[in-house]
Amino acid sequence: MSAQDAQQQQQQQQQKQPVSPLPLEGGSNDGSVGDLCRFGIVTVSDRASAGIYEDESGPAILRFFHEAIKSRWQAVYRVIPDERPLIEATLKELCDVEGCSLVVTTGGTGPAPRDVTPEATEAVCERMMPGYGEQMRAISLRYVPTAVLSRQTAGLRGKSLIINLPGKPKSIRETIDEIFASIPACIDLLEGPYIETNEEVVKTFRPPALRRTARPDPPAQ
Amino acid sequence: MSAQDAQQQQQQQQQKQPVSPLPLEGGSNDGSVGDLCRFGIVTVSDRASAGIYEDESGPAILRFFHEAIKSRWQAVYRVIPDERPLIEATLKELCDVEGCSLVVTTGGTGPAPRDVTPEATEAVCERMMPGYGEQMRAISLRYVPTAVLSRQTAGLRGKSLIINLPGKPKSIRETIDEIFASIPACIDLLEGPYIETNEEVVKTFRPPALRRTARPDPPAQ
Amino acid sequence: MSAQDAQQQQQQQQQKQPVSPLPLEGGSNDGSVGDLCRFGIVTVSDRASAGIYEDESGPAILRFFHEAIKSRWQAVYRVIPDERPLIEATLKELCDVEGCSLVVTTGGTGPAPRDVTPEATEAVCERMMPGYGEQMRAISLRYVPTAVLSRQTAGLRGKSLIINLPGKPKSIRETIDEIFASIPACIDLLEGPYIETNEEVVKTFRPPALRRTARPDPPAQ
Repeated sequence: MSAQDAQQQQQQQQQKQPVSPLPLEGGSNDGSVGDLCRFGIVTVSDRASAGIYEDESGPAILRFFHEAIKSRWQAVYRVIPDERPLIEATLKELCDVEGCSLVVTTGGTGPAPRDVTPEATEAVCERMMPGYGEQMRAISLRYVPTAVLSRQTAGLRGKSLIINLPGKPKSIRETIDEIFASIPACIDLLEGPYIETNEEVVKTFRPPALRRTARPDPPAQ
Repeated sequence: MSAQDAQQQQQQQQQKQPVSPLPLEGGSNDGSVGDLCRFGIVTVSDRASAGIYEDESGPAILRFFHEAIKSRWQAVYRVIPDERPLIEATLKELCDVEGCSLVVTTGGTGPAPRDVTPEATEAVCERMMPGYGEQMRAISLRYVPTAVLSRQTAGLRGKSLIINLPGKPKSIRETIDEIFASIPACIDLLEGPYIETNEEVVKTFRPPALRRTARPDPPAQ
Repeated sequence: MSAQDAQQQQQQQQQKQPVSPLPLEGGSNDGSVGDLCRFGIVTVSDRASAGIYEDESGPAILRFFHEAIKSRWQAVYRVIPDERPLIEATLKELCDVEGCSLVVTTGGTGPAPRDVTPEATEAVCERMMPGYGEQMRAISLRYVPTAVLSRQTAGLRGKSLIINLPGKPKSIRETIDEIFASIPACIDLLEGPYIETNEEVVKTFRPPALRRTARPDPPAQ
């Protein structure tokens, strides 16, 4: 490995471990029947990853988790440039190695030449979830006509759900607060952990067959 | 072929010919200007095909045809497990051999690991019809937030239209009663039989150029 | 080249240069801060290209540009049959050779066996824009239930946006007048010319960062 390559790799490692202004975990076992769940947050931005400005979108998503999730959770947070191979590698790592049941991305979903987050998402997913892209564009269209330009998509990789959120903190909260209502049921169907939300932030909907009223006994060793 | 293979094949044959609680044909030539049309109904469910419970979704679709279709029709009804190759083979058979102008599936469109009906549908279609998936998710979202989890799609194979309906009888009727308004015109454009509906159940819309006021003379031999 | 080939090519050349009832350029530098923009208009129709009837859809789009675009523009207009290789070649030519920032097609988006415009569009685009198809179907559904049959799509090829419009002049104006609000911002993001619209026809929306208040100085030679 050349000195330049080594330096570049080191920079990428630094990019991958951004300082978060908020704790990377939250929720509680007290008063919740849910299980520990891991979330991946990937900010895709050339400029944020280069340190030209500070990422505000990843922290906005973290803030949502702190406000909305009642059961225990941990987050893995990455800030990376708009490079398709790097986005794909990061999504794979968060799903396959870090065990994140939900991975959300922010950034890279517009028509600009460097925007390739939807293509990277589709490349790593085995099955697509077209409803989330449709729903998020419909929500954002209530606010701005340019919402139609968003190429956001979503899909499934193994037992993980990957969703492209909008790039701007304001648009993130306009959409995630609404679409999250269906995400715990999706993760149940993927045989993942049971997520409980704070009802005043997100009113989770589960079909009766998926509802839990008590935490199950731990599996026998 | 081994004895086990032969037994397995025999079981599949049995799965393929479920007992229907309703007649597999209906409509009438009297008082209708329409042609005989064949419909395929495919219930995709591991448990229903194994006889663990009785399929209620296929019969719900049959009931819709009895209530909604005024012109003559015949249905071919299959109940099969969530196996992608078998779903693809069944769809091909109903389109290419059985001559069904419309094939509707029920089941296997969610995010659960065994749900692969949309992938099988896309694999056998030459051209996709994205509008039906969008419209059905939009309809179902009026009832439950988890409608966004449905991965339903639709497409064209030769002169056949294939549509994934929801899995539950209640959701089937919430959607098919509304989307069927456009299906006769679609089959007209595919050069298939003229379908007439009972207006009080489905108000079919046809552009004026496609409307028929009398049954045409049979083609000269 | 055989005599037959030569004749066929000559016919295609004629098809490619239909007589337009309206000027193929418009807008003005006076009173606009915008740049010159080139538009491609492709009517896909076996019958119009064979001269069986006169194309009314291309001219309806031209009329829209005359009414809606305030800054200077030029249009390249083609009428071609529903042949996928020819549609693909025409789209490539208008994007890569003619330098059209926006290419709109009309026709060939239904379920009829010859309708392949969406497939040709997807084949020449590097990245898709799912929002436009969703939005146009949602708009047209306000008028007719058969809007769901439209397979319209949109995508990006290099710095060009390609959009499939409906086939009928009436449906074209029902959709383009509404969706055009986001198109100037899309072309900005593709680093193309700045388009200014007549606000009483199309109320263009641009995020503040994309807005221009004066024409920039020409680049130094």
